[in-house]
Amino acid sequence: MSCACVGAAQLGSEAQKRKYLPSLGKLQKVCVYALSEPDHGSDASTLCTTARKVSGGWGLNGKKLWPANSSFADVFLILARNTSTNQINGFIVHEGRPGMQISKIENKMSLRIVQNCDILLQDVFVPEDDRLPGANSFQDLVNALSIARVMVSWISIGIAMGAYDVSLRYLGERKQFGAPLASSQMNQEKLVRMLGNIQAMSLLGWRLCKLHDAGKITAGQASLGKAWITKQARETVALGRELLGGNGIVIDFHVGKAFCDMESVYSYEGSYDLNALVAAREITGISAIRPASRSYSPTLVLNIECTEASIYLAVVIIKLISQLPREDKEILLHLRITPRHSSAHEKKCATLPVFAISLVSVSETLFSM
Amino acid sequence: MSCACVGAAQLGSEAQKRKYLPSLGKLQKVCVYALSEPDHGSDASTLCTTARKVSGGWGLNGKKLWPANSSFADVFLILARNTSTNQINGFIVHEGRPGMQISKIENKMSLRIVQNCDILLQDVFVPEDDRLPGANSFQDLVNALSIARVMVSWISIGIAMGAYDVSLRYLGERKQFGAPLASSQMNQEKLVRMLGNIQAMSLLGWRLCKLHDAGKITAGQASLGKAWITKQARETVALGRELLGGNGIVIDFHVGKAFCDMESVYSYEGSYDLNALVAAREITGISAIRPASRSYSPTLVLNIECTEASIYLAVVIIKLISQLPREDKEILLHLRITPRHSSAHEKKCATLPVFAISLVSVSETLFSM
Amino acid sequence: MSCACVGAAQLGSEAQKRKYLPSLGKLQKVCVYALSEPDHGSDASTLCTTARKVSGGWGLNGKKLWPANSSFADVFLILARNTSTNQINGFIVHEGRPGMQISKIENKMSLRIVQNCDILLQDVFVPEDDRLPGANSFQDLVNALSIARVMVSWISIGIAMGAYDVSLRYLGERKQFGAPLASSQMNQEKLVRMLGNIQAMSLLGWRLCKLHDAGKITAGQASLGKAWITKQARETVALGRELLGGNGIVIDFHVGKAFCDMESVYSYEGSYDLNALVAAREITGISAIRPASRSYSPTLVLNIECTEASIYLAVVIIKLISQLPREDKEILLHLRITPRHSSAHEKKCATLPVFAISLVSVSETLFSM
Amino acid sequence: MSCACVGAAQLGSEAQKRKYLPSLGKLQKVCVYALSEPDHGSDASTLCTTARKVSGGWGLNGKKLWPANSSFADVFLILARNTSTNQINGFIVHEGRPGMQISKIENKMSLRIVQNCDILLQDVFVPEDDRLPGANSFQDLVNALSIARVMVSWISIGIAMGAYDVSLRYLGERKQFGAPLASSQMNQEKLVRMLGNIQAMSLLGWRLCKLHDAGKITAGQASLGKAWITKQARETVALGRELLGGNGIVIDFHVGKAFCDMESVYSYEGSYDLNALVAAREITGISAIRPASRSYSPTLVLNIECTEASIYLAVVIIKLISQLPREDKEILLHLRITPRHSSAHEKKCATLPVFAISLVSVSETLFSM
Repeated sequence: MSCACVGAAQLGSEAQKRKYLPSLGKLQKVCVYALSEPDHGSDASTLCTTARKVSGGWGLNGKKLWPANSSFADVFLILARNTSTNQINGFIVHEGRPGMQISKIENKMSLRIVQNCDILLQDVFVPEDDRLPGANSFQDLVNALSIARVMVSWISIGIAMGAYDVSLRYLGERKQFGAPLASSQMNQEKLVRMLGNIQAMSLLGWRLCKLHDAGKITAGQASLGKAWITKQARETVALGRELLGGNGIVIDFHVGKAFCDMESVYSYEGSYDLNALVAAREITGISAIRPASRSYSPTLVLNIECTEASIYLAVVIIKLISQLPREDKEILLHLRITPRHSSAHEKKCATLPVFAISLVSVSETLFSM
Repeated sequence: MSCACVGAAQLGSEAQKRKYLPSLGKLQKVCVYALSEPDHGSDASTLCTTARKVSGGWGLNGKKLWPANSSFADVFLILARNTSTNQINGFIVHEGRPGMQISKIENKMSLRIVQNCDILLQDVFVPEDDRLPGANSFQDLVNALSIARVMVSWISIGIAMGAYDVSLRYLGERKQFGAPLASSQMNQEKLVRMLGNIQAMSLLGWRLCKLHDAGKITAGQASLGKAWITKQARETVALGRELLGGNGIVIDFHVGKAFCDMESVYSYEGSYDLNALVAAREITGISAIRPASRSYSPTLVLNIECTEASIYLAVVIIKLISQLPREDKEILLHLRITPRHSSAHEKKCATLPVFAISLVSVSETLFSM
Repeated sequence: MSCACVGAAQLGSEAQKRKYLPSLGKLQKVCVYALSEPDHGSDASTLCTTARKVSGGWGLNGKKLWPANSSFADVFLILARNTSTNQINGFIVHEGRPGMQISKIENKMSLRIVQNCDILLQDVFVPEDDRLPGANSFQDLVNALSIARVMVSWISIGIAMGAYDVSLRYLGERKQFGAPLASSQMNQEKLVRMLGNIQAMSLLGWRLCKLHDAGKITAGQASLGKAWITKQARETVALGRELLGGNGIVIDFHVGKAFCDMESVYSYEGSYDLNALVAAREITGISAIRPASRSYSPTLVLNIECTEASIYLAVVIIKLISQLPREDKEILLHLRITPRHSSAHEKKCATLPVFAISLVSVSETLFSM
Repeated sequence: MSCACVGAAQLGSEAQKRKYLPSLGKLQKVCVYALSEPDHGSDASTLCTTARKVSGGWGLNGKKLWPANSSFADVFLILARNTSTNQINGFIVHEGRPGMQISKIENKMSLRIVQNCDILLQDVFVPEDDRLPGANSFQDLVNALSIARVMVSWISIGIAMGAYDVSLRYLGERKQFGAPLASSQMNQEKLVRMLGNIQAMSLLGWRLCKLHDAGKITAGQASLGKAWITKQARETVALGRELLGGNGIVIDFHVGKAFCDMESVYSYEGSYDLNALVAAREITGISAIRPASRSYSPTLVLNIECTEASIYLAVVIIKLISQLPREDKEILLHLRITPRHSSAHEKKCATLPVFAISLVSVSETLFSM
C-alpha cells in the first residue's frame, strides 16, 4: 500500500493527489500497486499489460501477479503499456470495475498477513482523468521504485530487530544444562552477529533516507541498500531462528515468523540479484541485467517481422555502421524475428529503396531497467 | 516414528520386538518416541519425567514436548528417570492410558505434516512387561540416537534433492528478459552450489551407513554427519528458495516448503550446535557441551542443602585436597545449594570458629577482560 | 608438472611417450605445461600464441603467463594456435631454444614454492617430430583439463587436511584463560566444520577418481568437483588460520601458509566461477560462460574489417536469415569491427557481387569452452 | 605505535605527556606498546611479566610477544604485574636498557611492513618517574583498548576500500571472452557485496567515533564494532582476491597483500571471538569469555597455597555461604592451588576432624552427555 501511496504522490496530478492521498494516508482506503506480471517479475520494464486508447479514456487488458491486499482494496494503481507509444503508463482503477477479476494466492509461507492476489484485466475501462500524468515511461517509475526500496529496507530492519529482541530475551530466560542459553559461547556469537548486522543495517538505512531527503539518492544506491540490507536481515533472522531451537518453528515465538517473512522481503521490490545488478550497473557503467547482452558497446534491438527481415536488416545495419566513428568497435545486434506469411509484404520489401528507410524501429531503451 | 521403531528394536526384549515391530514395520500402528521435555531439549540426559516403582509395574509422571504424531499414535516409547537408580529407563505406554493427556502444538511453520504434541503424564501406570529391558541409562540411548542422526541426515538429503530438482526445472522453464532464468550466471552458480552440496551430503550419508553396517559408527561420527549435512542442506534449500523468487514463497512450488521444513530437521535430533559439540568432544577429548565446565581438571558438583552447606563443604573440600597430589593444580567446585530452614543446623554452623579469617585472598577480578 | 605429464601421456605419440615419460615420471626432468596467456586466463580457448608452418617444423610466437617452474624446466609443452587451421595444437619445446625468453614472476603471496614465470616466444623453431599428434583442437585439451581438475581437487584436500591436523594439535596444546583453546565452544565448532568439510571433500574427490577410472567422468563433473572442493577447502583453511590467532600469520606454524597457498589453487585450473559455469552448462544445457551471449539461440560472431563492414554485413545477414526456418526466433549478431583505411579495399568492396560471398568468415565456435 | 601514543596520552602524567607526545606525534620517535605475552594473548589480564619495587624504581622481568617495530623503536610502554598489589601497571622503558633483549619475528605472511618482535626482560630497571600513574589495574587499560579497537576498525575499512578500488579498476580494464571482467554477473555481485560491506563498515566506524567523542563508548560497543567490521573486511578482501584471479596472488596488484594483511587485523586487538564475547557480555550480562566459568552466579577465585588450603577454604566458603540469601543458588568456586611445603602448616591441617565425612554426595556424572 505504501508503494501505491508513493506512486500516487509522485506520479499523480494535483487533483488526483487531493482526491486520493488523504484517505490513503489515514488508512481509510486501501490502495494497491500492480506492476509485476506472471511472466515479468525482475524484468518489469517489459510488462505486457496493455492500455489502448478508447473513447473517453483507456481500455486495459492483461494479468497482474502478487499485488498485495487486492482482495479488499479500494483503489488499484495499474501499470500498463500504452499501445500507441509502447511506453509504460499508470492508471487508477476503482474496485469492482467491470472486467477486473481478482483471485487470492493461497498457501503462502511468508508474509501471510498480506493477501496477495492475481488480477485479470479484460477491457477494463479507465476514464482519462484516472491516468497518472507523471507516468509516461518506465523511467518515471524508477524514482518511485527507489523510494520503495528504501522503505522495504526498513521493513527488513524492523523484522531483524524484532527477531533479535525476542532471541535475546529467550536466551536469557531459557536454561539448558543448568545455565541460561545466553551463557553459551556459540549462542553469544550469534547474538553479537545479529546486533552487528542490525546496527550496520540501520545506519545504512538511515543514510539512504538522508540521501533521499537531499535529493541525491540514485537508483544504484537504493538498490545497493535494498540488496545489502535484506541479505544481512536474512542472515540475522536465520540466526534467530536457530537460537530458538525447536521453539523457533512455532510462530507464537515470533522468530520463526520473522524467518519466513524475510523471504518475501528478500525477493520483492527487486530480488537480491536484480538489485545487485542495478547497483553494479551504476558502479561499473556496464549492465549485466540481461544475461545475454553485451552492454559495454551500443546494442540495438531490432523488432522486425520475419519476411521483411533480410532487407530491413541490411539497410539498418548499413546505416548504423555508416554513422559509427571509425574505431575499433563492437556492436551487438539483437534481432527478434517474428514470422509473418504475407507474400504481398515480401514483394513490397523486395522493391524498397533501401536507403530511404529510417531507423525508427530500433529501440534504444534496451537497458532501461 | 522411525526413531521409535529403532528404539523398540534396540532396547526391547525379544517378546516386545515380536509383539510390536511387525505392525510398526507395516505402518499399521504408529509409535511415538518421547524424549524431549519442556526444559530439557539439548540436555536430554537431565530429563525430569520420573518412573516410580509401584505394585506390578511403574508410575510415570512428567511432561514431554514435541513427540511427533502423538495425537493419533497407538504406542508411546517414553523415557523417564527411575527414581530408585536415578538412571533413565524406557517404557511402552499404550494410547488412552489413564493419566496421559495429549495437546497438539499449533502454529508450526515447519514440518506441518507432522503433528507434534505435548504429553502430560500423571501417575500413568505401566506394567512391568512394558519396561524396555535394554534401556537402563542415558548411555543406552546414545546408540539409538546415533542411528536416528543418520536417518535424519538422509531426510535432509532428500529435502535438498527435491529442492534442487524443482529449482532446476523451474529455471529452465521460466523466462525473464527473454531468456530462461537458467541462463543467468548468478542462478547457475547457485544451482552448482546446490548440486555440489547434495553430492557431498549423499556421499557423507552413505559413509555413515557403511560405518553403521560395519558396527564402527561412533556418537561423534553420527553427530558430525548430522551437523554438517543439515548445515549444507539448510544452505541448499535457502538457495533454492531464492532461485524461485516470488514463487518460492508459495508452498505449491515445493521449494518454499522445503525451506521451512529444513528448520525442524536442522534443530531436532540434536541442534547443529549440540551435535557439533558432541563431535568435537570426540575429536578433542574435551567436552564443551556444558557451557560452564572446565573439563581439563577435576570438577566436582556438590548438591547440598543450604543450612548444612558450610560444614559439609569445608569437610568435603579438605578431604578432596588432602588426596590431591601436591602439584600446581586447579579445581572447580560447583555448588548447588538448596535452602533448608533448620534452626538446629544453623546453630551448629554459628559455633564454628571462622569469623576471624578475612576474605582478602579472594580475587574479585575474574571477569575483568 | 603433473599437468604436463598428463598432457604428454594423453596427447603425445608413442615415440614421444617413450622418449619423455620415463624421465618425467622419475622426476629427473621437469616439464612445464604452458596454456595461459597474459590476456587469456579463463578464456584459454581463444589464446593468441601462434604456430606457423615453416620448413621442417613450426615457428612459435607469443607470450605465456604463469607456467610453473619454467626457470629451471627441461621441457615445455606449449599450446599454440595453428595459423592454417585456426585450431589449437601442442608443441614440445626444449629448454634454451633460441627465441624463448623466460622471466620469473616475483612477489607472490601464495604457492611460493612454485616459481611461476612469463615465457616470451619469438620465432621459436619446433621440429615436426615435436608436435603432439593428439592435440588438434581445444577440445582435445578438455580431457586433460578434466584430469588436472581432479588432481587439483586433491591438492586442496591435502592442504585442508594439513591445516586441520596442525589446528587440532595447536588447540590441544595452547592454553588461554587456564584451559586449552580446544575447550572453547567456538573453537570446537570451527574444528568440526573443518573436519566435516574434509570428510566431504575427500569423498567427493574419491568419487571423481572412481568416475575417471570407469571412463565416465565428464567435464562438468570434474569442474563441479574442482569448484566445490576448492570452495570448501578455502573455508577450511580460513577457519584454521583464525584458530591459530596471532601465530596463524607466522608461516612456521604452517596454517598461515596453507591459507595463502589455497588462493592459487582456488583460482588456477579454472577459477571457481569458471568451473561453476562449466558445470552449470552441463546441468542446464545453457552456457553462461561468455557474459554477453544468448546461448539459447544461434549467435554468430563476424570478424570484419571496418571499411568493408557495411556491404559485407548486409550480405552475410541476408544470407543467414534466408537460411533460417520461418519461426519465432532470436539471433544475436556480434560484430567485431577493425578499422582499415584502404581506399583500394573500399573500391573493391563496392564492386563485389553481393550474393557470391560465402559465410566462411562466420565463426561457429563461439561456445566452445 | 598509535596504541602506544594513546596509552601514553591516557595513562601518563602531565610531565610524561610533555616529554614524549610531541616527538611521537611528529613520528620523530617510535614508541611500542607491549601487552601480549607468549602464553597470554586473548587473556591479557592474566599476564605474567612482573614489576618488583626496587630502590629508586622498578625491576621488570618477563617476556612480551608481538610488539610492533620493537627492533627500531625508541621507547617501550610495557605492561607488567606489580608484585605488591597483583595489579597491572605501565612502565616506560627506553631502547637499549640493560636486560632488555629483542628478537625479530620472521616469516610473517601478513602485515609484513610491521616488524613484530619478542622482548625478553631480565631485571630491567625503570626509574620511578617512568611509571605511568594512570595505569593501576587492568581496568585502566580497557579504555585504551576500546580506542585502539576503533582505530583498528578504521584500518580494516581502509584495507577494504583499497581492495575495492583496485578490484573495480581491474575488472573494468581486463578483458576475457572479449568483454571486460566487469560485465560478468558473478563479478558484479562480488563488487556490490564489497561496496555494501564498505559503506556499512564506514558508517559503523563513524558511529563509534561519535560515541567516543561524546564519551559514551563502552567496551562492548568498541568490541562489537571491531569484531563486526573486521569480519566484513575479511569477506571483502577475500572477494577482491578472488576477483583478481591469478593476478590476485601477486602482491604488486595490491589486493593479494590486502587479503593477507587483513588476517593480522582480524586477530589482533582482540580476536574476532574474544571481541564477540566481550560484546556479548555487555548484551547478555553473562560472561562466556572463560570457557569453563558459570558466570550467571557468583564465582569466586581462591588463590591459595596448598598446605593451607583445607582450612582457608572451609573458612572462606562458610563465610561466603553465610552471606548468601537463602535461595536456590549455584556458586562456582575456582581454586588455584599452589603447593607450599611447610611442615608446620601440614601439621595444623592434620588435626582437623574431617575424615569421618564421606564423599557420597559428590556427583561424578557431570560430563555424561
